[in-house]
Order: sequence, then C-alpha cells, then structure tokens
Amino acid sequence: MFGTLVDWRTGVAREAEAILKPRGYALDWLAFADAWRAEYDPGMEAVRSGRIPYLKLDVLHRQMLDTILPRFGIKDLPEADRHELTFAWHRLDGWPDVKPGLERLSRRFMLAPMSNGNFLIMADMAKRNGWRWDAILGADLAHDYKPKPRVYLAGAEAFDLPPGDCMMVAAHHGDLTSPAASSIHTAYVARPDEFGPGKGAEPMTGNVDLSVRSLLELADKLGA
Amino acid sequence: MFGTLVDWRTGVAREAEAILKPRGYALDWLAFADAWRAEYDPGMEAVRSGRIPYLKLDVLHRQMLDTILPRFGIKDLPEADRHELTFAWHRLDGWPDVKPGLERLSRRFMLAPMSNGNFLIMADMAKRNGWRWDAILGADLAHDYKPKPRVYLAGAEAFDLPPGDCMMVAAHHGDLTSPAASSIHTAYVARPDEFGPGKGAEPMTGNVDLSVRSLLELADKLGA
Repeated sequence: MFGTLVDWRTGVAREAEAILKPRGYALDWLAFADAWRAEYDPGMEAVRSGRIPYLKLDVLHRQMLDTILPRFGIKDLPEADRHELTFAWHRLDGWPDVKPGLERLSRRFMLAPMSNGNFLIMADMAKRNGWRWDAILGADLAHDYKPKPRVYLAGAEAFDLPPGDCMMVAAHHGDLTSPAASSIHTAYVARPDEFGPGKGAEPMTGNVDLSVRSLLELADKLGA
Repeated sequence: MFGTLVDWRTGVAREAEAILKPRGYALDWLAFADAWRAEYDPGMEAVRSGRIPYLKLDVLHRQMLDTILPRFGIKDLPEADRHELTFAWHRLDGWPDVKPGLERLSRRFMLAPMSNGNFLIMADMAKRNGWRWDAILGADLAHDYKPKPRVYLAGAEAFDLPPGDCMMVAAHHGDLTSPAASSIHTAYVARPDEFGPGKGAEPMTGNVDLSVRSLLELADKLGA
C-alpha cells in the first residue's frame, strides 16, 4: 500500500501542512513526512519481536508522531490535532496507474491489500481513490506485522488458496522475499518517485516472478 | 447475508439440482436446501459453546452436508462433488433491492457484511452480485460466531467506531437483539420470501431502531 499503491510522502506532507500551518508552524513538510516514515519499521518491530502486543498501525503512527513532533520544535499540539494528523495516513492518493490497473486485474483475479495498515486505513484509502477490493487482508487480520510469514499466509487462507495460487505485489524487496520463501508468487513494481522526484526506485535485490513499472504493465503480463 | 441479502433457499436448491441431477438423483431440491440450513445453527453452536475450536463456515457447511446426504438417500458422492456442493453457498443471488440499495447506502456510510460466512463466501458473493464492500467483517475476523457480542464488536473496532455509530441490518431477530444489547443500532428488514413464497417474514419480536421492507427503504430512512 504505502509506496506501492499510494504516494505517502507528498500526501503526508500536504496533510501536515494543512493541519500545522494554520497553527503557525513552518516546517520542511517533506522532511517531516520522511521522519515519520523512518519510525515505521522500528515501531512495528516492537510488535513483531513480541516486546509489545499487537497494536494497529493507527496506534503506532500516533506513537511515532509523538516521538517526532518535538524534533520539529512542536510541543503542546492539542490532542484533536494529533488525532487528525495521525489520520493523514488515511488520506493518501494512488499513483495514476493504480485505479485503472486494479480495474483490469479485478476482471481476472481476487484482489486484496496485504498491508501493515489496519482495516480502517485500507477502507478509507479505497473509498477516497475509488478502488474495489474483494476483501481487506493483512496485518490487522493476522494481528502481527509483515514481513512475518504468518501475515501473508493468513491472507492466502482467508481466500482458501494455496500460497502458490497467490501473488504478492510490492515496491519493496523486504516485502517480497518473505512471501517468496512461502511459495507465494511475487511481482516487483518500481516506484521511482516514492522517496522524491529523481530519487529512483528501491532496487529489487532478490528474485521475483515479475518486475514491472506499473499495475497496467502487471495486468498486461498477467493477461488481465 | 443469508436471508437478509441473498435468497439462499432457491439458490442452494438450484445448485444442488445442477450438481446432483446429472448423477441421477431426483430430490425435492427445496427440501434439501431447508434441511441443510436447519443444521446451520446447531453447527455453529459447537463453536460458540467452546466444544470445538473455530472452524470457518465452509468447513461447517461441509460437515452439515455429510450429515444430511444420507437422509436423502445419497451415499458415495465423490469428494469433488461434495466440495462443489459446499460452495453452493458462495453462488447465491441477492434480492432485487440489494444492489441498488447498497449503492445508495455506500454514498453516506461505510458498509461491511457482518455475517457468519467466512471471507471467501463473502468475497465470492460480492463479486457475483456486483456489490462493493468497504471491508469484510464478521465471524471469520472474530473467530467466533454470532450472536456472540464479540463478533459484532470486533467489526465496530475494525472501523474504529463506538458501537453507537454502527448499525446492524438483518432479517432475523436473533441477529439484532445481541448487537442492540451492545448499543449498536439495529434495522430489521423483512424478507417474506426467505422460506418460500407466501411463507412470510420472520417476525421481529424485540425492539429495533428501524423496520423496513428493503434496502431502498432503509436508504430513504437514513437519508442516503
């Protein structure tokens, strides 16, 4: 979802500016988005390692926000604003190929987000972008975080499919090597603008079944 | 889902006929559907009571099928046919008001099935009928069966909503009294043809917030 389907970086920057600028703050909004995202993996690792029980991503996002706000000189932000800001991660826009790509893929396949985002993040994002999922699967169903194999496999089981009849599609190699080890097919989609224009896509280091530059190319390759 | 949104009785009868008639069986197909459905509640009660661990409805449907087949004089039905027959419950048609009703309700509300059917039953039914859910919630998420309160509340939590911001819509009073006791709003929709033409709807005996005859009337009453 984050990076693969939606442009989280400019979206979170835009939402942060909309909420914080009227309060008199002038930050580097993209740096703020980057700092927040940098807390993402360490935050989930606390759950994956068993140090803390499963908490949904909205809760972790809020904890991460409380961590980074002081670094940007923001103290005493009202509770309502912190909540609103946390929900910035629900109001992100899809890359241009996603809507038409999902529509084509949907004719031939069952489609579900396999994200670390919780149900409501996924549902809000689908409603905003006009996407149609067959179900929402992922961390909030498995009560643990990717890339733990159980999360991907719980998704396959929900659709009553052996892993070999499923495909994980992601822009990050860390999200593809784990399912591949469970016999799930994998497709890497390059998102060169995820970390900023000209920054380039995260390189794919492992083996994948397909490597594409958009969901439309994926639909082409899968005959959808 | 079963009865409230889809006509399970004629659907299961049709599917049973399509699968069993070519094998030379001539049953009262509607009676067969009724007999299967009669095993529904006792089957789930084994899970609800804790006598057996959670098993998804596809598995329970299959056990129920194995129970009733001999009563209709059917022995030695091949495994593949039993499997195909079990999936009759995935191939049911919505009442005529459901598709346009859900489309109207979707403009104003988040919509999710809160069914005892597992993820794949819900996903197949949505695909077949052209419905668009915001998520699939219900027994397969909570790993227990309605009307246990936990199942409804797990759905509310997935959407991050207090119970009082949710509404359960059902054609059966047993599916409304439990959520009502948890402060979830309730709407009863009468389905007079569920158990056969002229049989009449199951009467609503408890208190509900709304009582309607279709999802279109529900949309009217909710301003959607």
